Order: sequence, then C-alpha cells, then structure tokens
Amino acid sequence: MTIPRCLVLMTDFGLEDAYVGILKSVIERLAPGTQVLDLSHGIPAGQIRWGAYLLQSAWPYLPENSVLVAVVDPGVGSARRGLCLQVGTRYLVGPDNGIFSLVLRQTPASAIYCLENTDYFLHPLSHTFHGRDIFAPVAAHLLNGVPPAQFGPACTDILPLDWPSPHEREPGVLQGEVLLWDHFGNLITNFSRLEVEARLPSHALVRIAIANQMIQGIHKTYAEVAVGTCLAVWGSGGYLEISIHQGDARRALGAEIGTPVYLYLH
Amino acid sequence: MTIPRCLVLMTDFGLEDAYVGILKSVIERLAPGTQVLDLSHGIPAGQIRWGAYLLQSAWPYLPENSVLVAVVDPGVGSARRGLCLQVGTRYLVGPDNGIFSLVLRQTPASAIYCLENTDYFLHPLSHTFHGRDIFAPVAAHLLNGVPPAQFGPACTDILPLDWPSPHEREPGVLQGEVLLWDHFGNLITNFSRLEVEARLPSHALVRIAIANQMIQGIHKTYAEVAVGTCLAVWGSGGYLEISIHQGDARRALGAEIGTPVYLYLH
Amino acid sequence: MTIPRCLVLMTDFGLEDAYVGILKSVIERLAPGTQVLDLSHGIPAGQIRWGAYLLQSAWPYLPENSVLVAVVDPGVGSARRGLCLQVGTRYLVGPDNGIFSLVLRQTPASAIYCLENTDYFLHPLSHTFHGRDIFAPVAAHLLNGVPPAQFGPACTDILPLDWPSPHEREPGVLQGEVLLWDHFGNLITNFSRLEVEARLPSHALVRIAIANQMIQGIHKTYAEVAVGTCLAVWGSGGYLEISIHQGDARRALGAEIGTPVYLYLH
Repeated sequence: MTIPRCLVLMTDFGLEDAYVGILKSVIERLAPGTQVLDLSHGIPAGQIRWGAYLLQSAWPYLPENSVLVAVVDPGVGSARRGLCLQVGTRYLVGPDNGIFSLVLRQTPASAIYCLENTDYFLHPLSHTFHGRDIFAPVAAHLLNGVPPAQFGPACTDILPLDWPSPHEREPGVLQGEVLLWDHFGNLITNFSRLEVEARLPSHALVRIAIANQMIQGIHKTYAEVAVGTCLAVWGSGGYLEISIHQGDARRALGAEIGTPVYLYLH
Repeated sequence: MTIPRCLVLMTDFGLEDAYVGILKSVIERLAPGTQVLDLSHGIPAGQIRWGAYLLQSAWPYLPENSVLVAVVDPGVGSARRGLCLQVGTRYLVGPDNGIFSLVLRQTPASAIYCLENTDYFLHPLSHTFHGRDIFAPVAAHLLNGVPPAQFGPACTDILPLDWPSPHEREPGVLQGEVLLWDHFGNLITNFSRLEVEARLPSHALVRIAIANQMIQGIHKTYAEVAVGTCLAVWGSGGYLEISIHQGDARRALGAEIGTPVYLYLH
Repeated sequence: MTIPRCLVLMTDFGLEDAYVGILKSVIERLAPGTQVLDLSHGIPAGQIRWGAYLLQSAWPYLPENSVLVAVVDPGVGSARRGLCLQVGTRYLVGPDNGIFSLVLRQTPASAIYCLENTDYFLHPLSHTFHGRDIFAPVAAHLLNGVPPAQFGPACTDILPLDWPSPHEREPGVLQGEVLLWDHFGNLITNFSRLEVEARLPSHALVRIAIANQMIQGIHKTYAEVAVGTCLAVWGSGGYLEISIHQGDARRALGAEIGTPVYLYLH
C-alpha cells in the first residue's frame, strides 16, 4: 500500500471541549502538515451503532489513501482492544467494538492488527483518553509510513456490531425501527434500500406506519408533498427515512431510538 | 479570472451529522489538497435570510480568488435551479433561492450560470442531497480550473430574497424587526447602519423600543453600560444590534424572528 | 525565535455564527495558506476560567512553533489591553484577562507585549469584535515573521486569573468545587493531581463527597465500576473528575459551576 495522504476523524467527543483539538495537535506534532478532514464529532456519547451508520453513509465518498480514526469508545480503559484495519486503500483505526462493522459488510478488510505495541503510544498512557494516547498517534505513524504490522499481531475475531435487522412480523409486513436521526429531524430507519428493493419489484403500493402515522408510498424527494406533510424517502445514506417537508419529523412524531416502523409490502 | 485557490463552505447542515464531512470528502477526491474554510454550518434549517445575512457580514473579509459554496436549500429536489455566480474574484455556488442577494447588493455579479450540465454532477444523482451531488462537485471543478460557462447557460433572472426593510410607521418613527441572533444572544435587526445614518446626522437622541424595553441612544461598545444592562450598538455586520452587557438579550427579551423594533429618530 | 508554522484557535464564539469563519478569513487573507487548528470554540460565553482550563489541558500537546489565539473576551471594547506573549516556542495572543494564567504557571513567558500599534489592526476598528480586528491580524503578522516587539511596549503586570484553590475545611478534609464539565457530563474539579498526590502517599483510603453522593477511592478508569455507577478518576487534564460510567454525572448530580466537592484524606 502507498503511504496515506490524509486523515479523516470521527468521534463522539462533541466540539465544545478541547478533545478534538488535542487529537489534531497530537497528529500535527507527530506528522506535521497532515491534512485533516472532520467527518463528524456529533455522534451521541457512546452510540456505536449511530457512528457505524454515519461511517458507512460516508464511506463511498471518503478520500482514497487515507487513515480514518473512529473513536466512539464507551469501553475505554477496559480490556477492549484497539484495532488497525486495512480496507481497500484506507486504514481504519479505533476500538474493537463494532464501529467498523457496516463498512466491512461493504468492503472486507484485507488485514486486521491489534494495537499492542506501546512504542507507538503516547506516554504516560491515560486510562480515559485513548483517542489522544493510542488512536491519534497510531494514525500519525501510519501517515508517516509505518507499516500496520508494526502495531501488533494480526487478528481476525473482531467484535460484531449489535445491529437490528427488520423482521417479517406477518406475511407482507416488515417490522423495523428508528436507528437515528439527523440535524433536520429526518428519521433514519433500518430498512436498507438494497434489501427492500430485492423483495419488491415496484414500490407503488408500499405503505409505512410509524407512531399512528400512515404514509403512502415512497417518494423521490420532499418537494413532492406539501410543506408540513410526512413522507418516506430513500435517504442519501441508502436507508429508508421518514421526513416532514420543511419540518422536523423527529419532534413531530416523538420518535426515539427503537421506535417501531412497519413496512406493508402489499 | 485566475483559478481559485481555496474553498469557503456555508450550510445549514449542522455539525452533528456526516453531511459536511461528506461535502469535504467529495471536494478532496475531485480536487485533492484543496484548502477549505468553514464559514458556518449553524444556520437554522432552511433559513435563507439568516444565511444571506451571515454571508454578507463575512463578505468583506473572505479570501479573494475563492469558491464559496452556500447550501441552505429547503427546495432541494424541486424545480429550483442551481447557480454559479462570478462576483469580483470569487465564485458563488448554490441554489437559486435568494441566498446570495445581500452580497449582490454590495457587489453585482459579472456572470451567472445555471447548473445544468450533468457531466459535472455525481451519479447517481440523489433527490435530497444536492450539496453532495451537485454543488460540491461543481465547486471542485472550478478549483480545477473548469470555466463556469461549462456548467450551463447564462441566466439573469435569479430569484430575489424576501427581505423585510424597515418602514416609517409614523413621522420620525421607523419600524423594523429582529432578523436573527447570534450565539451570545445579540439580536440583529434589519436597521442597516448606512441607511439609518443617511437619515440622521447624529444619533444623540435616537431611542429604540423592543419588547417593552426602551433603550436610549446607540452605544459604541458593551462596556459603556453596566453589566446586565440592555443597549443598542452598530454590530460588526453593519446592522443595529440589541444586546445585554455580558448577558443574553434574546433570552431576556424573549425575542423571536420578526419581533418588532422601533427606532425613534427624534 | 523561528517563524511560527501554524495557528491554534480557541474562542467562546460557538460555531453557529460566522465569527470563527471570519477570523479564519482574516488570517487567510493576511497570511495565505496558514494551517489552522481549532482547539475549541465551545467555551461558555465569557467564561475565562473555563477557557484557561481547556488551554492548560491541551498545552502539552499543542504544536511547537505555533501561534495560539485565545478569545474569551467579555471586556471587549473596554480599556482592557490586548497581549502577545512568548512562551517556549509559542506565541499567545488574546485579551489581558487571565485566560493565559494556568499555562503561565506551567511555563513562564519569556516576553510579553501590549498590542498598541494600530498599524497591525484592521481598520475601521470595531468596538465589539477585536478577535477579527486585532487578535487575528496580529496573529497573521506573527505568522508572516513580524517580531512581537513591533506590536507595542513590553509589559509585566498582566492580570491574574480568579482561580479557586481548594482549602482545608477541617484537618484531613479539603474543600474544592466543580470548575466545569465536558460534553460527556464529566465534572472537572479544582483538585489538581500534583497537589493532592503531594499530600498523600497513597489514595487507597480517599473518599469524595459531592451532592449527597459519597465516592470511595479514586479509580483508574470508568470500566472498573458497574455501568451507571458514580466514580472519581484523575482526568486526562490533570484534575480530579467525577464521572458516571457510561452516564452523565453533571445531569445526574445536578452539579453547577461552584458546586462543593469534599476530599477526605483519611
């Protein structure tokens, strides 16, 4: 593999504190001049599934020959391992907790290493901020051309993500749920476009039920319905989304993570 | 025109999601190494007027020879057009919904093109994320030296912004309103310094009324009044602002978009 | 000193508005191509102590040969001075209000200058946005190699920070307080690790009381206690923190700035 040329960062650190700035500082000191691209730092604290979704939604667009550091790490300081994965032309660095699972379904890893070689960590090593002390420095070393096998032994048994697939509640009725929402209040469900379309030659007759709301059909875009109307679209991330045209579906429907969504295929 | 040397981004996407990161990824893939400057991603969802204000307040300070992408796009997926404008040494790229109007009052466009040539879009083209599929790639092509006439036909009839100008309520009394507020709770009104000062040789006797609060005169800075006191200043963006010294005027006065503000010129 | 090679920004501007983008634009125009690293823009409005803490927590990690601009400036427009400090290989630029105090305890300044030479400011000079008109342009001139003595006279009597040190409430009991919190709801107290450990050979028997909660001992990491349990750790910034494993201590304990924290040394 060629030496990576830029860094992509994704965390649940938020932007209020100095944590993201400290990650970038560590990178800048070890690999000066690195170009850094912030994917998101707004994943709700500890929500691995949310992070996995954001990562896979961005995956086809991310720069080639890059290092991606993903830190959503509720198990920091426990025995959970740190990983470096090689996936296509990219390196992925982060905790072993399933955060990379959805990406790996799209593109399998060509190599996976455990981060065990403390020569590549910052010292003293904290017990609460491995983003700063392990993941950022490992990323910087990758950007400097260190081969990933230097970081530790190869491994294959990484942790899967706890991901809720829709199931058939009764013939012709799929039950899914709300996975997350975005800044606009669009609700992202776990109905994947590929999986639903494989079962369905046309969506002319699909109906969707959520929170006492019945939605007819899947639209192409918000502007096909009146302002304030609830609709379903295939979102830009490849999953079915429930939206309100120029409104906030999350607030209007009172939806939470796990709110059931029903898809009537007939 | 010379080839632009950096990119400025302004959206209502917020920073929680991966949307801004995806825009930057698209730019980085098409125009590697581009320097990106985030103007703001915190415009309230769909608030075109708010975005137009932020853009004009920053306009005199923005880098020359740059591309500015502005995505506040409640009409995404409808028939609204995409535009590329040439204004001074800068290119502006975004939806045709008035977002550029205040800038154009300061500096007219030397050329305007509709974004119709799908060769410069990403494919498949989504119906809900034209920032990713149209505006970011067009910006990247500009940064690569593609002349804007390649993107589509010239046009002149772009949409104006719905902008509320103050009016004379009775002789010597102007009625304006709150347009927006900032992070500190400063209320930005639609009284432009240039327009008010043209009518007024001195502001010694001006009084301002808002929400049962009467404010005497226009101060130069917060520190001229006691902590906790309400005052009016000419804001750094060129409009009259209502503030509380070391306080949050928006919260204290319960102001909203459109809250009336009266300026007594005598 | 060598010419600084990058810029670090810290403000209380938030990211909703264009203020941070305008700072960066000013830098880009005066010192094109400058690499900018955002430390944080999420300090609560006007909270100098909060900013001083974030800055010192990041200090050991910040790039060498850099310029740091820190704008938490409730006194903007008053007679408060602007400063440029030389500390190690870094320049610090910002208001004279104590924001740099904690850093200066770690590393004294080798020189301090008052920003008085208006040749290095933007004009017209506003009374409400010195970040744009004074601090950013001064930083850009430093990045261009202007020696700091050009900006104004040397000074030594800079303002100290109002910082609450813990005190001995009764023999063996130290009283401190909550200084701030982070995005995860971790409460950062004013018990410094260095100071507490100097008094204490081992922490086996320490107890901590906060808001009717009694905490036994200081743990190494969150995962040492059950999910949902309250614990104390030495935070990554060097101060004692009160946390809840995978929870939000700030919300659960209803803590505010100044909430008392008691450390029982026996």
